[in-house]
Amino acid sequence: MLNRKIILLILGILLLIEAFFLFVSGLVSLGFEGTDAPAFFISGGIAFLVGSVSFYYNRTANKELGKREGFLIVSLVWVVFSLFGSLPFIISGEIPSFTDAFFETISGFTTTGASILNDIESMPHGLLFWRSLTQWLGGMGIIVLSLSILPFLGIGGMQLFSAEVPGLTPDKLHPKVKETAKRLWVIYSLFTLAEFLLLLGGGMGWFDALNHSFTTMATGGYSTKQASIAYFNSPYIHYVIAIFMFIAGTNFTLSYFALHGKLGKVWKNEEFRYYLGFVLAFTILVTLGLYYIMDSLTLEKSFRDALFQVVSIVTTTGFATADYAVWGQFLLFVIFALMFFGGSAGSTGGGIKIVRIVVVIKNSYYEVKRLLHPKAVLPVRLNRKVMSEKVVMNVLAFIVFYFVIFVLGVGIMSSIGLDFKTAMGAVAASLGNIGPGIGGVGPTENFAFIPDAGKWFLAFLMLLGRLELFTVLAILTPVFWRS
Amino acid sequence: MLNRKIILLILGILLLIEAFFLFVSGLVSLGFEGTDAPAFFISGGIAFLVGSVSFYYNRTANKELGKREGFLIVSLVWVVFSLFGSLPFIISGEIPSFTDAFFETISGFTTTGASILNDIESMPHGLLFWRSLTQWLGGMGIIVLSLSILPFLGIGGMQLFSAEVPGLTPDKLHPKVKETAKRLWVIYSLFTLAEFLLLLGGGMGWFDALNHSFTTMATGGYSTKQASIAYFNSPYIHYVIAIFMFIAGTNFTLSYFALHGKLGKVWKNEEFRYYLGFVLAFTILVTLGLYYIMDSLTLEKSFRDALFQVVSIVTTTGFATADYAVWGQFLLFVIFALMFFGGSAGSTGGGIKIVRIVVVIKNSYYEVKRLLHPKAVLPVRLNRKVMSEKVVMNVLAFIVFYFVIFVLGVGIMSSIGLDFKTAMGAVAASLGNIGPGIGGVGPTENFAFIPDAGKWFLAFLMLLGRLELFTVLAILTPVFWRS
Repeated sequence: MLNRKIILLILGILLLIEAFFLFVSGLVSLGFEGTDAPAFFISGGIAFLVGSVSFYYNRTANKELGKREGFLIVSLVWVVFSLFGSLPFIISGEIPSFTDAFFETISGFTTTGASILNDIESMPHGLLFWRSLTQWLGGMGIIVLSLSILPFLGIGGMQLFSAEVPGLTPDKLHPKVKETAKRLWVIYSLFTLAEFLLLLGGGMGWFDALNHSFTTMATGGYSTKQASIAYFNSPYIHYVIAIFMFIAGTNFTLSYFALHGKLGKVWKNEEFRYYLGFVLAFTILVTLGLYYIMDSLTLEKSFRDALFQVVSIVTTTGFATADYAVWGQFLLFVIFALMFFGGSAGSTGGGIKIVRIVVVIKNSYYEVKRLLHPKAVLPVRLNRKVMSEKVVMNVLAFIVFYFVIFVLGVGIMSSIGLDFKTAMGAVAASLGNIGPGIGGVGPTENFAFIPDAGKWFLAFLMLLGRLELFTVLAILTPVFWRS
Repeated sequence: MLNRKIILLILGILLLIEAFFLFVSGLVSLGFEGTDAPAFFISGGIAFLVGSVSFYYNRTANKELGKREGFLIVSLVWVVFSLFGSLPFIISGEIPSFTDAFFETISGFTTTGASILNDIESMPHGLLFWRSLTQWLGGMGIIVLSLSILPFLGIGGMQLFSAEVPGLTPDKLHPKVKETAKRLWVIYSLFTLAEFLLLLGGGMGWFDALNHSFTTMATGGYSTKQASIAYFNSPYIHYVIAIFMFIAGTNFTLSYFALHGKLGKVWKNEEFRYYLGFVLAFTILVTLGLYYIMDSLTLEKSFRDALFQVVSIVTTTGFATADYAVWGQFLLFVIFALMFFGGSAGSTGGGIKIVRIVVVIKNSYYEVKRLLHPKAVLPVRLNRKVMSEKVVMNVLAFIVFYFVIFVLGVGIMSSIGLDFKTAMGAVAASLGNIGPGIGGVGPTENFAFIPDAGKWFLAFLMLLGRLELFTVLAILTPVFWRS
């Protein structure tokens, strides 16, 4: 029997936390004398009420938390948060459509950053703040989830993470899950603060600096400006944000070691070296492409635009300082291909994740080698340790799944009338938690025009991608509901 | 040390076989009093001369044929055949460009069917016959290769084939490889003859009937008409060709059993059941789509067009009775997705192959199930037999490889100026040995406009796809050339 009470109890507690942040946003709104303040207090009140009721009626729940309950909580929390989180948009009248408000909110919590807004600057400050806050909470939520709750559930992504970062498992960071989560929370906050101060120092206003720091560290990509980071015509700001996007796409356990001066441990990590290598290689490729294709750009500007867009897409942030849609067919393809990379395992980034790509590259090489030497034992190694066949198969299955879902997704979006390019862009950007895609959902466009059915489907893909496919898919199998 | 002499000896012998078929085409040309007859006798003479010299100087070769020699022969024979096979096109002046002639010929031998011809009907009969013959030889070549030479080399695809068709391995068909190859040759010829007679009976001229029978059974798709099968305005002819395409996409070992009345063995084969199921399901989907989208079509015509195009793409033949490019976004996507299916293992079809898709579906399901029951032993079964993890990993790696090559291919074709849709169509159609793609290389278009560099790259993809990736990739690794 499924322990429904414990699920409702935990969701109730989490809802109280969301209510708290809704009230905080209400205070921010009051500070700006915004018209949206009542919407926050009403929404927060509703969340508080529902959370309290759920808590009260289930407080006697059997505290035994099984695997299935864990799966359901991990999946449902994003839906519940997005439902209540969309209330301020609806109540304030700024996003009257429920579909649009839900899309904007789940795009925030999953750190996707795909928006339906046509005129971001006209939004009241409170709602802009809440929008960025959803990403910041979602970003940290994922790390904490993946490092504290998921290993307990034995979920695939985490198996991978611990298997591939030997010596860097969360246990090693600190044996107690609670302590680990706290430490990660501190690092996350410190980086956010550091970026905030650096952006302030670069002349950005405090409100914009805070919002962008939130959404950078979450690899979310929501901006307070319709033109995204291109609005800020300052190389300094571009470089600062690029660096922090890169950090946000790095395994946070590595950042912890780096902050403690253990740089050797960082360098020894294979995923990090590949991550750095991919970013550098693609930055050089795109820099050269831009410099020679777009005569108008200086070498510095080519490099800056290339670095920013490459890091933004690889880490699945989705900020833009330039419109890659006008970079020509080849560079557009490069950017699109980068949408299938994703940040490092244990980062706030979405997508496939670098470590999986590394495993696939290595395994492919061995697969060919095995052809010539069928009897040879050629296991895949990561960080000099042999990986079990089970983990390698999980990685291969994940990637095949990812592509199959991508292809089916493009089919579904095509069937509701999107052209090929836009369908591919929308699906890749949603499933990879990136934000902008290509075609009709390129970096200077938005998702407003997509029919409601399409928005719900893309919202589902965001959740699927954010939870690394298997968790959500498991719930959809009949096996899950039997017994 | 690589035994170069044995490679040259075998290639020499094979070249003599090609010379024979070039002479046969010359006789056909003479029968039609064609202007292209001299081109065939000159080409055949050159092939005969080179083959004889290679044979003569290497006749003393050490007959020991190692794995690496096998890989090289299997890969090089397609290149050598295409080089000499393109001579009649060049010498006759009908395709003056060497690139175009090579493209047309390797597209034939690999049974791809992508053409650079703008006006097929203006070609002399001899060259049309040779074009169809390259496909027929390539189609049979692949079966014989995969059933006689490849198992000896222990190549992946064959491992899979024998692993997945228990009780239906070539050994069971007949213990001697030579005898097996002969039997398959007989079945292949019988089916070709049967189709030829049925097409004749339907009013098709004998020359067209012969050519189309050749290219149907090879799942090649070259037609003697610019409009492909749409030229023949006869439901009977459409149905006959659809049925024979379906047969050509079936494992030929199963056809052997069927011809011997052992239908139970056919039905017990899981790949066949999935193959039939996919074809039926997609035919129904496309029929309904056509009937409701295209008001002008009757239900019968909708069904016929749907069946024909679905079978044609799934089996990687590439014939057309309708232009799916005008079927609207959704159905176009369905057709494009079908380009990643491919026929059955042991058929003349290219692509990923149904059995691999079945393995991936099953493994994905178990991968999700394993999440909930991590300790449970859940091996993938095919035909009720457990598959080894090694084979499952090979399948997963193959599919990941296939998509990576597809994505890289689209990148390369984009970089030489093709638009996204055309690049995707050209790469999917070449790698899958299908023929027509989507966009600028759709069913009513051709490959003539693609820059030379692109044609060479697509030709490489055809070879890669035809040999199921690993053989060619192995040759490209440094490991292969060491020792």
